[in-house]
Amino acid sequence: MDKEQFLEVYRHSLSHILAKAVIELYGKEVQYAIGPQIADGFYYDFLLPEGARITEDDFKKIDDKMREIIKRREDWTRKEVSKAQALEMFKDQKYKTELIVDLPEDETITVYYTGEDYVDLCRGPHVDNSQELMNTAFEIRSASGAYWRGDEKNDTLVRVYAYAFPDKKQLKEHKAFIREAKERDHKKIGPQQDLFMFDETAPGMPYWLPRGWKLFNALLAYWRSIHEEHGYNEISGPVISKKILWETSGHWDHYQDGMFIVPSDDDKETYALKPMNCPNAIKVFMNQARSYRELPFRINQVDVIHRKEKSGELNGLFRVQQFRQDDAHILVTEDQIASEIGDIMDIAGEIYGTFGLTYEAELSTRPDDYMGDIEVWNQAEADLKAILDAKYGEDGYEINEGDGAFYGPKIDLKMRDALGREWQMGTIQLDFQLPLNFDMKYTAADSSQKRPVMIHRAIFGSMERFIGIITENFKGAFPFWLSPYQVGIVPIRQEHNDYAKEILGMLRKNGVRAEADFSEKNMKEKIKAYKNYKDPYILVLGDKEVEERTVSINLRGSNKQLNNVPLDIFLDMCDMMNEEHSLEIMDQMPETEA
Amino acid sequence: MDKEQFLEVYRHSLSHILAKAVIELYGKEVQYAIGPQIADGFYYDFLLPEGARITEDDFKKIDDKMREIIKRREDWTRKEVSKAQALEMFKDQKYKTELIVDLPEDETITVYYTGEDYVDLCRGPHVDNSQELMNTAFEIRSASGAYWRGDEKNDTLVRVYAYAFPDKKQLKEHKAFIREAKERDHKKIGPQQDLFMFDETAPGMPYWLPRGWKLFNALLAYWRSIHEEHGYNEISGPVISKKILWETSGHWDHYQDGMFIVPSDDDKETYALKPMNCPNAIKVFMNQARSYRELPFRINQVDVIHRKEKSGELNGLFRVQQFRQDDAHILVTEDQIASEIGDIMDIAGEIYGTFGLTYEAELSTRPDDYMGDIEVWNQAEADLKAILDAKYGEDGYEINEGDGAFYGPKIDLKMRDALGREWQMGTIQLDFQLPLNFDMKYTAADSSQKRPVMIHRAIFGSMERFIGIITENFKGAFPFWLSPYQVGIVPIRQEHNDYAKEILGMLRKNGVRAEADFSEKNMKEKIKAYKNYKDPYILVLGDKEVEERTVSINLRGSNKQLNNVPLDIFLDMCDMMNEEHSLEIMDQMPETEA
Repeated sequence: MDKEQFLEVYRHSLSHILAKAVIELYGKEVQYAIGPQIADGFYYDFLLPEGARITEDDFKKIDDKMREIIKRREDWTRKEVSKAQALEMFKDQKYKTELIVDLPEDETITVYYTGEDYVDLCRGPHVDNSQELMNTAFEIRSASGAYWRGDEKNDTLVRVYAYAFPDKKQLKEHKAFIREAKERDHKKIGPQQDLFMFDETAPGMPYWLPRGWKLFNALLAYWRSIHEEHGYNEISGPVISKKILWETSGHWDHYQDGMFIVPSDDDKETYALKPMNCPNAIKVFMNQARSYRELPFRINQVDVIHRKEKSGELNGLFRVQQFRQDDAHILVTEDQIASEIGDIMDIAGEIYGTFGLTYEAELSTRPDDYMGDIEVWNQAEADLKAILDAKYGEDGYEINEGDGAFYGPKIDLKMRDALGREWQMGTIQLDFQLPLNFDMKYTAADSSQKRPVMIHRAIFGSMERFIGIITENFKGAFPFWLSPYQVGIVPIRQEHNDYAKEILGMLRKNGVRAEADFSEKNMKEKIKAYKNYKDPYILVLGDKEVEERTVSINLRGSNKQLNNVPLDIFLDMCDMMNEEHSLEIMDQMPETEA
Repeated sequence: MDKEQFLEVYRHSLSHILAKAVIELYGKEVQYAIGPQIADGFYYDFLLPEGARITEDDFKKIDDKMREIIKRREDWTRKEVSKAQALEMFKDQKYKTELIVDLPEDETITVYYTGEDYVDLCRGPHVDNSQELMNTAFEIRSASGAYWRGDEKNDTLVRVYAYAFPDKKQLKEHKAFIREAKERDHKKIGPQQDLFMFDETAPGMPYWLPRGWKLFNALLAYWRSIHEEHGYNEISGPVISKKILWETSGHWDHYQDGMFIVPSDDDKETYALKPMNCPNAIKVFMNQARSYRELPFRINQVDVIHRKEKSGELNGLFRVQQFRQDDAHILVTEDQIASEIGDIMDIAGEIYGTFGLTYEAELSTRPDDYMGDIEVWNQAEADLKAILDAKYGEDGYEINEGDGAFYGPKIDLKMRDALGREWQMGTIQLDFQLPLNFDMKYTAADSSQKRPVMIHRAIFGSMERFIGIITENFKGAFPFWLSPYQVGIVPIRQEHNDYAKEILGMLRKNGVRAEADFSEKNMKEKIKAYKNYKDPYILVLGDKEVEERTVSINLRGSNKQLNNVPLDIFLDMCDMMNEEHSLEIMDQMPETEA
């Protein structure tokens, strides 16, 4: 039995033990519903007798009861019963009865006894005797409300979650991971560091506060400079366009439910907010006749886009209704696909490298319902494979056969963050369809009119989501070049404000994002505020420095202080750190962190 | 009689002459409708006999006929008639008849005879004899279609426009002005220099092409730096928000027709695209409890906003449906109004000065239906007056008594461009209402809760409109610091591309917006393209420079060429010109222009 199977068997078994414990504690009237395993343990849903509750105070009691039951070393016995027999066995259990009723008439039903007084409807497998569970590590994590079968029209049950791992060490590690992930939660750090906020009048549509907007624009500037080097030209297009545009692009037929629509009595005047930027790039391409000499035609764009989400699915910056993709659309000849994808992979490598993030690639290939010329598909897929082979080796990436879109194959890029969590980020998508829908053409070298191939791609995914991810990855202590402010200036007393203004001006002139606190607060309060914001450097200015043009520097994440650093050396330092993206990131992460 | 009255009398008189001429040329069946004077002349609307047309070829014929009529030295005689008499006189003129029918029954109607065979319905005054018109200068300008009474359900008439001035010199000057304005038209220069485009699927919503977007962002960077210096913090808020927000702000009741609305079956889920940014700034202010220590609380913002316009009123970048205001909202105590307005006037002065634009101020004061405390109004108006007095002298600005909004007094700033045309640009608006609607508060020094005053202000008006105006003002030859690209690099032959890449990289690294043409086109074609784009400098790179690290420079707007300029001197030059906004503008305007 491998580790995965083992986890499956004993998490499953432990969930029965949990149910048995709850019944013993809360009485036979407890209705037990379902108890599946999950990534880090299991849960079980209960309807408790009237008036009974499970709160944090009860967790130890349940835990203890579970251990007591395990110590009984009871046998687990499997029985096969008919539907009628099952209904009779569970006649006092309404949820089990519901589940049994839904089964086919002739189904043989398996039930498992744990000891003699507890039976559960279950396919198994389970342990043979509770004894096998004695060395495992488990812990009740939380209890919350959940609708029976996830439907808000049904009963509200109590869902009891528990962690469960093969041993105590693994459980401890996992709990530390969860604690760390909670501390890194961007929904906590965002408001704490005044990066962004949400308002109930615009769910899933972030308000970027001044500090967050600084960070946003620093990230944007970095992204722009790389794309300029690689020959991209940035545009900005309308946020809303008429229905006819979305009919041509196909979004009206295939994505209407996800779009915010501005209807009109005159149907021709109906607008929709753009869920994607593609048609803008197409319109710009088609603004004049294009020659093969202009290809690859590279357009990048970070306009605001909108996509409807169910309110329950919104999640901080990770799942939003308004965002900005770091979008690009490239029109190429078929011959240029390979070299262009190679260039995009270079850009992706450069960008992820800057953040010290590792990433993996997945290739999705032609589905059965593909459109277009099979020869073109074959060549395109061969091109993509050759690039991935060269970069990762033949077994260094996953292939999802038949999982591409009907309009073209794609490469997905997945990153792993400081906690080892995986994130779907970049996508490089070939598209043979949109150029057809819009009848796009260019004049080839032989003067014939040819159809370009379109490449859609994003490296960050969206600016919003990526900022959410790096906020967690860096725990709010962003690399120097990305920090909302890079330097916080603290004049010790009011009489040092003039000197502070001078230094502030000088730093800003040198392209350093600096802020200063000229208020009447005392030094400690001012330093505390900038420490909360995690400004990489805090300059403390008092009498002594006035004459010598030096500054005292507090370094983020350490108690080290550098005294009387000549200002020009500090400026050189800032300059270097703004330039050397990747170098700097390594240096600036506080030592205590991953 | 002053000049204005004179223009009124003789333009009016000339329009009768035009009507008389058209009748003599096209026959008695001509239906003549109305012939008012306009800013640079007059027009007259006609329904011509079936099959008859007026095209450019006919202008001279009409012009000659008018001069012939004037030379007849006919008297103009005024007559008063009753409504019934008037209807009889004009019984063959359907439009005149319509006009007369609409007059009150007992109205005394004045008609004017020019000679004996032409009579028009008119209040006058006119010249006494055509002789008086002999020295005036006029010229048929154009003929186009116009609906009777501006209603598309009515007859389409021919509208004949004519220029009319007191003498030939003034007419000539005006025609030169019109020619110049046409050449400067941003709707012509925009596409010519690939700055922006419009698509029929998004009327009034500009697509910013790569070059225009560079310019846009250069302008934005300049605007941001000034506001950062003045203690503003930039935010970005949602493009759409729920109806409840607009109900609170009052936009739902007062501006609903101007808003793009995303309705929902559940009214609470109805969204509207923001027509203004104010509520975003308010939400950010209210995100936490605020102290008087945080005031003035200055927020700037350039998000995309949307306002519905009738399609006939759209006009390039001047009248659009999607744009970005260079918006700011400031929350102040009543005591801070004066100093804050003073600071805003300083910002405005600095910005307009950078563009070499002169501007004037107008103050609009309390209307009868004002809201709030009259004492606060009095003090606020006294503050605004004191600032304007100090800046312009007591008679140096206009006061529009009673013309303020009900929620506060305002200052409008009007600029004059290179052609002397006036543009409404900046607005500084006090607002006592919105802080009330949202129940905004801050904790005062005495720990009481007080209501802040809000200031709305924009300096450019909108980024889009301002870019339209400066495109015309600079005739597409933007100051160095604002040019989409500042330097265009032309490698003479393919073997010079490597050197060109090196120079390109070096310029970009030094913050210069440079572009290079590595194509196989010949040198002349490449230079021609960059001349069309009005890149301030064109660097031509060939053999000789490779070793010496020097460049040859073509200067925009002149045929001067500087040979073998050391690159570091050129870089210093660029640096200086990026810094010294106002200095540079003066230098860079081609000598042939205003």
